[in-house]
Amino acid sequence: MRMIELISRKRDGYEHTTEELDYLVRGITDGSIPDYQLAAWCMAVYFQGMTPREARHLARKMAASGDQIDLSSIPGVKIDKHSTGGVGDKTSLVVAPMVAAAGVPVCKMSGRGLGHTGGTIDKLEAIPGYRTELPIAEFFQQVRTVGIGIVGQSGNLVPADQQLYALRDVTGTVESIPLIATSIMSKKLASGADGFVLDVKVGNGAFLNTQQEAERLAELMVAIGKRAGRQPVAVLSSMEQPLGRAIGNALEVREAIATLAGEGPADLKELSLVLGAQMLILAGAAADEETARRKLEAILTSGQALRFFEKWMEAQGGDPSITSHPERLPTATLVRKVLSNAGGYVSGWDTEALGLTAMRLGAGRERKNDPIDHGVGLIIEKKIGDRVVAGEAIAQVYARSEEQAVRAAQAIRSALRLSPLPPTPAPLILGYII
Amino acid sequence: MRMIELISRKRDGYEHTTEELDYLVRGITDGSIPDYQLAAWCMAVYFQGMTPREARHLARKMAASGDQIDLSSIPGVKIDKHSTGGVGDKTSLVVAPMVAAAGVPVCKMSGRGLGHTGGTIDKLEAIPGYRTELPIAEFFQQVRTVGIGIVGQSGNLVPADQQLYALRDVTGTVESIPLIATSIMSKKLASGADGFVLDVKVGNGAFLNTQQEAERLAELMVAIGKRAGRQPVAVLSSMEQPLGRAIGNALEVREAIATLAGEGPADLKELSLVLGAQMLILAGAAADEETARRKLEAILTSGQALRFFEKWMEAQGGDPSITSHPERLPTATLVRKVLSNAGGYVSGWDTEALGLTAMRLGAGRERKNDPIDHGVGLIIEKKIGDRVVAGEAIAQVYARSEEQAVRAAQAIRSALRLSPLPPTPAPLILGYII
Repeated sequence: MRMIELISRKRDGYEHTTEELDYLVRGITDGSIPDYQLAAWCMAVYFQGMTPREARHLARKMAASGDQIDLSSIPGVKIDKHSTGGVGDKTSLVVAPMVAAAGVPVCKMSGRGLGHTGGTIDKLEAIPGYRTELPIAEFFQQVRTVGIGIVGQSGNLVPADQQLYALRDVTGTVESIPLIATSIMSKKLASGADGFVLDVKVGNGAFLNTQQEAERLAELMVAIGKRAGRQPVAVLSSMEQPLGRAIGNALEVREAIATLAGEGPADLKELSLVLGAQMLILAGAAADEETARRKLEAILTSGQALRFFEKWMEAQGGDPSITSHPERLPTATLVRKVLSNAGGYVSGWDTEALGLTAMRLGAGRERKNDPIDHGVGLIIEKKIGDRVVAGEAIAQVYARSEEQAVRAAQAIRSALRLSPLPPTPAPLILGYII
Repeated sequence: MRMIELISRKRDGYEHTTEELDYLVRGITDGSIPDYQLAAWCMAVYFQGMTPREARHLARKMAASGDQIDLSSIPGVKIDKHSTGGVGDKTSLVVAPMVAAAGVPVCKMSGRGLGHTGGTIDKLEAIPGYRTELPIAEFFQQVRTVGIGIVGQSGNLVPADQQLYALRDVTGTVESIPLIATSIMSKKLASGADGFVLDVKVGNGAFLNTQQEAERLAELMVAIGKRAGRQPVAVLSSMEQPLGRAIGNALEVREAIATLAGEGPADLKELSLVLGAQMLILAGAAADEETARRKLEAILTSGQALRFFEKWMEAQGGDPSITSHPERLPTATLVRKVLSNAGGYVSGWDTEALGLTAMRLGAGRERKNDPIDHGVGLIIEKKIGDRVVAGEAIAQVYARSEEQAVRAAQAIRSALRLSPLPPTPAPLILGYII
């Protein structure tokens, strides 16, 4: 078999055989296929796509290219949650303790943020003392005894995806639905959970801008998960504005704590309940959505969720007192209000621009391995539908210098869309793919 | 400027700016753009194409990436002839002395063959003593005094194309019309001729299988040539069967000599007259096609063309006696007839298969730098429209071993298409693009 033939076949719209895909994954993993041939193949996939059969097989083969985590030593059904990446998306920090408090073990390996979207591990590292790197035995032991644990991805997990993703990143082939689906699902399959709740973001702050694309991605991911004998469900959620109000690591942790205490923004609470309910159903801890939701709402209002968060912090080295003393989170002290120069109703936000603004303040990284400043970020005061009076504050900037704050304020003002009349309300949850 | 942006722009169907193309050619030439990014860009071009403006600018920039040959020391209008590559195409060997005998200087730098198509330099190297490498001053002096010279490409001619072609060859991006056009034309522009007659082959033995694709390529090449201030004309010719009867280097030289002596196959003679006539017109040596053709026919029948071939050989070290003693060409002594196992009329040949059969005998190279056996090859006895009786010879194989001959004979038999009725005659010349 020769890689040039695989490239030509994909370029001409043929479906790869199982043997061809096996050859491909082996060649990516051992480095025997040169980068330039892989790059040409990725671009051919960008234009010609993949059949569900190809994507399913590729994801499973990639999952098997390195370590595969065995969660069987942890009792119960293990359900993972994954987001395709959004701005201000701190849902995992709310969902994880909430679901764990409902008796479903949470054993999560999370990633870091890149570009305009954040990563759960970066947010957790904003918490003084929190240990994102634990020896695997210690991590499993914590989940067994406490019921919850979130660490960073480590070890040799899906080396084929690491290679391929690095190459896609520099060859304009990130935005391919089958390549996104196989990349995500290979990692999910290797991480060993029994089921996955996949939060597929749609809108101007997400990788996918249209519902149609998001549905295609969700369908493909669900098909890959099912075929591998796991239980997947995908929720399509809107990313036409930041989720909640906070963007930036420590600020987002504060907002997650507020939500666990029943005081968070409505959209963040709603999405957390929706995703959490699906996790409970998959784990067999609730028979239907209504039951699951009622259970989770009770956990929130009773304070159980917040207490579980504290228990989790104690177990994993984080300072549990941040729930009553959020000021102990490392937040920038230079805080500037951003005033609107016009009035009207908020009809939209350029969400990607807000994500990039936070990144430039230091909250995110442009390149892998860039350092992060956990204390900087934005608070978006006005959500879509809110009324704005000229001169009123639309946001706050947490920055390290006056110059950075001024630049961020300008970017925020140009990211705001105002209209004279209130916009038609748009739903947060756009659909389910089961 | 960043290459990743160029890739994304091409992928999304945008036209490159002049500055982007300049950046690209610079980066290809100095090696600063990594192979994997170039490969992704080539595949994006394969799917999105190029505008004529992009192709024109790219070809000119590539031409300027290395040495550019100055032919001004040779008096007269210099016209080059180029073929996109066919099976059994020895036209240059006929056209060059014929046109030179008509007073138009022929100063040609030719390439080697690759895959199923042959190269003029490989054929010339079948001639004992012929020097395909000459110092440039000596080469120009020969053209000035004798009126003809053909050497191999040397020096630092279009390094950007050398880089790009090598990469396209291993990334499934050879078959892109704008990339073919810019590759050919950059070399033509750098080689310094005032005009070009471009023989664009169409059919199952050519890179392009449909007339529509060939027209697109021809139009693009002509547009590139014109915009660079040269005089181009393209002739579309059929490659649905080998040109003439001989495939293989020494065998083709013999057939070219026979054609110069007025005894060659009709299609080879016809194409040579057509291409030669266009060269005379471009050079100003004839006012119209009819005059040019009459002139060339007279040169053929009077024996002038053959005598000019001998003069050329004398000047460039080749043995001139091969015209009267073709057996002095190094031909394989194991010659086997290929008999048909069925009867009917020849309705077609799988021409590429014939080219590959000759290549496997040793007449061509699968990979650049493979050695060549000048003495092996095929003689195709039956042309499209000819009648075949079962058991009759359809071809001869010149091979080095019985085993090779048997394998070639089998391939030739499976490449033959027979039909019970004579096929509708198809034209050799399919059109002109001026």
